Amino acid sequence: MEINVVENVLKLNDEIAQLNRSMLRDAGTACLNLMGSPGSGKTLLLEKTLSALRDEMRIGVITGDLTTTRDATRLAAHCEHVSQINTGKGCHLDANQVRQGMATMPLDELDLLIIENVGNLICPIGFDLGQTVKVGLFSVPEGDDKPAKHPYVVLEAGVLLLNKMDLLPYVPFDMDLFLADIRAIREDVPIMKISAASGDGLDGWFNWVKRLVGSEVGELLET
Amino acid sequence: MEINVVENVLKLNDEIAQLNRSMLRDAGTACLNLMGSPGSGKTLLLEKTLSALRDEMRIGVITGDLTTTRDATRLAAHCEHVSQINTGKGCHLDANQVRQGMATMPLDELDLLIIENVGNLICPIGFDLGQTVKVGLFSVPEGDDKPAKHPYVVLEAGVLLLNKMDLLPYVPFDMDLFLADIRAIREDVPIMKISAASGDGLDGWFNWVKRLVGSEVGELLET
Repeated sequence: MEINVVENVLKLNDEIAQLNRSMLRDAGTACLNLMGSPGSGKTLLLEKTLSALRDEMRIGVITGDLTTTRDATRLAAHCEHVSQINTGKGCHLDANQVRQGMATMPLDELDLLIIENVGNLICPIGFDLGQTVKVGLFSVPEGDDKPAKHPYVVLEAGVLLLNKMDLLPYVPFDMDLFLADIRAIREDVPIMKISAASGDGLDGWFNWVKRLVGSEVGELLET
Repeated sequence: MEINVVENVLKLNDEIAQLNRSMLRDAGTACLNLMGSPGSGKTLLLEKTLSALRDEMRIGVITGDLTTTRDATRLAAHCEHVSQINTGKGCHLDANQVRQGMATMPLDELDLLIIENVGNLICPIGFDLGQTVKVGLFSVPEGDDKPAKHPYVVLEAGVLLLNKMDLLPYVPFDMDLFLADIRAIREDVPIMKISAASGDGLDGWFNWVKRLVGSEVGELLET
């Protein structure tokens, strides 16, 4: 009974996610779903990304948080189209919330929609939002054991980022273990080491985003 | 319909939590429910705590993770009674899982049971486990905005810890904002600045734990 309800909730979410996906495809808009722990650096990464790419492509952002509009305020300095979704006690964004966020934007005019999910390395993974690609964000001070302890984000992501590389000298972090744990789960997923704070490695990330946006809609990674 | 089911799940959880609470009270065992983001330093804090207090009190640990037994392996080096609960895709521990973990331990012989919750700053907050006190763990590299963005852990915790103070020189962190955001939600909750890595501030934490364990069962903070 309880399981049926959970299945139904996920089924309904998946149906709305497919509608979102169709709308994005019709508009020719690529869509990233960025997921990571609280404090992994999602918002700073987006600030840097918006700032670097705003002259090359038109970007909209939907950002999820339990409370506060602090992230939206930060992002609005770099982006005309920002929609804040407050989930209350909700631990993830769902497809219907994203649909409501999309309705506030001129989707046809956007090349890229970035969804900054709620800071949580578990629950967001299971909810399809209609994105083109899921992006998994780890950070150095979280520790080298996070891919092994959170394998579902590794399984689902189209690209993995390891942020806060500038803190590597100050914390214990076994890079070989971190990479080996990922490779034990996924052999093929790209892994980029970055520091949103210092800017190191961000060019590779920007190029990845540009390739995604430049690809034909029919070639989008998730369909 | 869906809401009713969620309410029933929480009601059942609360009933089992009350049974856990009764068992702990009968055994004279205090119980901490430690909650924090992935990589906030829960396991290292517990390693240091077990190592420092093992000669003064008898401690058991229940540790939750999606997968792997890495935390349990680390903790077992400092503690005879460690129970690992793997939640699969589950984003929090529930009272029934803790009940199963408690069943593996000689509760009557323990002065303190520590529950290390799944790394997640959202979902664990809503699930009573029967603990005496909830402990909320933040860490400096997560950023100064986490109390405002995650107010429910601030509302529920009997004590808040700010870990990784040794990283303060290397990251942007507005301590006044961090503290003011907490005080806007809760005026009374104790806040301790610590570094589990360097040991700074841990004496205050150890003393807090000793006071909790030394208190009469009837004075336990949550009933």
